[in-house]
Amino acid sequence: MQQSITNLKDFISQRIKLSGWLYSKREKGKLIFLQFRDGTGIIQVVVFKDNVTQEIFDRCKKITRESSCVIEGKVREEKRAPEGVEIDLDSIEILHLNSEDFPIQIQDVVPEVNFLMEQRHLWLRSRKQVALLRVRSQLIYAIRTFFQKRNFVCVDSPILTPAACEGTTTLFKVDYFDDEAFLSQSGQLYIEAACMALGKVYCFGPTFRAEKSKTRKHLTEFWMIEPEISFITFDKLLDFIQDYIEEIVQTTYSNCVPELKILERDLSKLDQIKRPFPIISYKEAVEIIKKNGEQIQYGEDFGAPQEEALVKEFNKPVFVTRYPSNIKAFYMKPDPADNNLALCVDVIAPEGFGELIGGSQRIDDYDLLKQRILDHKLPLDSFKWYLDLRKYGSASHGGFGMGLERTLSWISGIKHVRECIPFPRLLYRIYP
Amino acid sequence: MQQSITNLKDFISQRIKLSGWLYSKREKGKLIFLQFRDGTGIIQVVVFKDNVTQEIFDRCKKITRESSCVIEGKVREEKRAPEGVEIDLDSIEILHLNSEDFPIQIQDVVPEVNFLMEQRHLWLRSRKQVALLRVRSQLIYAIRTFFQKRNFVCVDSPILTPAACEGTTTLFKVDYFDDEAFLSQSGQLYIEAACMALGKVYCFGPTFRAEKSKTRKHLTEFWMIEPEISFITFDKLLDFIQDYIEEIVQTTYSNCVPELKILERDLSKLDQIKRPFPIISYKEAVEIIKKNGEQIQYGEDFGAPQEEALVKEFNKPVFVTRYPSNIKAFYMKPDPADNNLALCVDVIAPEGFGELIGGSQRIDDYDLLKQRILDHKLPLDSFKWYLDLRKYGSASHGGFGMGLERTLSWISGIKHVRECIPFPRLLYRIYP
Repeated sequence: MQQSITNLKDFISQRIKLSGWLYSKREKGKLIFLQFRDGTGIIQVVVFKDNVTQEIFDRCKKITRESSCVIEGKVREEKRAPEGVEIDLDSIEILHLNSEDFPIQIQDVVPEVNFLMEQRHLWLRSRKQVALLRVRSQLIYAIRTFFQKRNFVCVDSPILTPAACEGTTTLFKVDYFDDEAFLSQSGQLYIEAACMALGKVYCFGPTFRAEKSKTRKHLTEFWMIEPEISFITFDKLLDFIQDYIEEIVQTTYSNCVPELKILERDLSKLDQIKRPFPIISYKEAVEIIKKNGEQIQYGEDFGAPQEEALVKEFNKPVFVTRYPSNIKAFYMKPDPADNNLALCVDVIAPEGFGELIGGSQRIDDYDLLKQRILDHKLPLDSFKWYLDLRKYGSASHGGFGMGLERTLSWISGIKHVRECIPFPRLLYRIYP
Repeated sequence: MQQSITNLKDFISQRIKLSGWLYSKREKGKLIFLQFRDGTGIIQVVVFKDNVTQEIFDRCKKITRESSCVIEGKVREEKRAPEGVEIDLDSIEILHLNSEDFPIQIQDVVPEVNFLMEQRHLWLRSRKQVALLRVRSQLIYAIRTFFQKRNFVCVDSPILTPAACEGTTTLFKVDYFDDEAFLSQSGQLYIEAACMALGKVYCFGPTFRAEKSKTRKHLTEFWMIEPEISFITFDKLLDFIQDYIEEIVQTTYSNCVPELKILERDLSKLDQIKRPFPIISYKEAVEIIKKNGEQIQYGEDFGAPQEEALVKEFNKPVFVTRYPSNIKAFYMKPDPADNNLALCVDVIAPEGFGELIGGSQRIDDYDLLKQRILDHKLPLDSFKWYLDLRKYGSASHGGFGMGLERTLSWISGIKHVRECIPFPRLLYRIYP
């Protein structure tokens, strides 16, 4: 039977067998220290010349970085080791000896990012990248479990769509047989249809924006979570988002402490991500931004400098509500108390990680929605089905969208979203 | 507080309030029977003229199909009802009265499919479609939980890719800024890279095939589950697939009995989907197909008629192993016992639902893989990174791909996959 590195603590003083790869190596006289990884973790393997045959010792001298091998040895408790154990090696079998040097070196000098991106398929093997992808996976499962527990139905929205959701300027065009289609920018319109059928729904899939941005917060392909709830009021929606953020952050955090430590995340920042979250109006946000020395006029949307000025005040995500309608999406419902404002919320992460969530109550009135589509110069024909949702059994409903990579970047404390997705797509990158 | 239809059994003899839509209506003298739906289920609401005001009774007479409303009433046990309860109505508030007839009628005559597809956003509200989407959602969660429990890491493969995975003829081309990209046909090559980093991984996302097929088993956009496991042998892979099928089917089945009954699924068929599953060779499969009267030559792949002839023998999914290499994908490892055969498996569903799974051991030898890429006239440049996986620490590995909609169609007993995805994309359909 083979073990894995994560459960070696249950095998102290026992002989075990592991398949994996050499992560790094250090030699010191009669001793060779192998850092060995198997996908679940990295462990130190100690080779002592007097305890193994000459042939085994020679193999350990010969093995190169990222060569694959099977090792056997005895597990020894070692309190100073990150995993709490080390292995005293008895034998090693090299499965595939790399003839060339592995392109990615372990060194203090960080390699040039474009080089690493070109080698993404190999860069994934690095300790930090492994940790980050594990956090991503736990976050995904925490999100899905949050909805599953609350009887939401997962309704996958389509990727190939006939029209734009949020304007037409940032669409990727696809040759669809003799026709054309566009890659989805958001599943929202579709899950609005689904929420009228199933009550509480969410979609969670890839979305696409052909933005020419090259900031650290932008990808052209990224994953979005979009719940939609029928018969919800705006206040209940804000309440729901608070539950959601607390649960997904705390669940991921508690399942990923070793990984977050590898990523050098300041865990005290995550301890604080609990209800209640600060809820302020757009108007109040503008005042705070001005007070903190950043330029903004009432009526303008926030850029990165404004977001950073705003969140100086907060150590939790801040909920900014009721933006002026004319800087927000066409489908957002006006505030009955002030028609110029939208019943919307943006949730902005602390520490400068940017906008996590955009949500709103949706327009449920047919005539107003039709007018908005016309005002935004969107093709009415493509939205006929969407208008039908207000023609037949219209009901108050609302929801939000959350970018997965942006959220992962915040939880993990990784500044650049390009590391937060296994194979990032950027303005000038679709390889590997 | 509002309840939902699924938990009304806990409120017998109590007054409750529900928001939802009128599904259908029947009048009989002083009685009106409303079929009321809230997304979680459908329930009968009884309106008795003598128990309500004239105004309430008139509203119930006036309300049209799929109008949205809030009802209040008392829950009464009713053993003959599917949900075990009915509601005696006290009051109703109509939120949005449909001025026009809802386009989809409830009738014995099944409406023309193209019409229903055009109205997919409204068709979703039908009892069977709601049930089917609920089964889909439970199946998705069962699959993700299967992998989560076994410490697999979810690694999302990219949708925008520079090259074809399984041949170049069925690719959708995307305008990618000044370049071009293709929609992914499979995440497999990418999760092979991930499995060398993380040991056990899976991806689960949309994939695309620009096939001009119009059969009931084809979609141009569909979701695939693709696990990949390092250091696995072919026999262990077969074993793993057996565990996987049993668990995802039995979990979904046990969570969805009411939905499967609505779909009129023969549940006795699902009772049998337990280990062990029949495992036969391609050669044996060819003999069975011939015996059952269908034409096939050794060396040919199976079409639908051959699959149907084969599964006559079995009431469980059948595992067909070791096809001739030349009719299978380029990356499949040859059988050491016979170089002309591939270490591969197709799992074919009973009852004529077609191929569920295609899996294999992958080629781990650099030279052989490079030769295969050249033989298949694939662009070597685009596969440089994929070859790197055999240059650095190559290791035996294998996995499989499973189509979500095909699997859902089998579990639910729905013959056509176009109903098994919320918004199907077909050769001539990208609307709504």
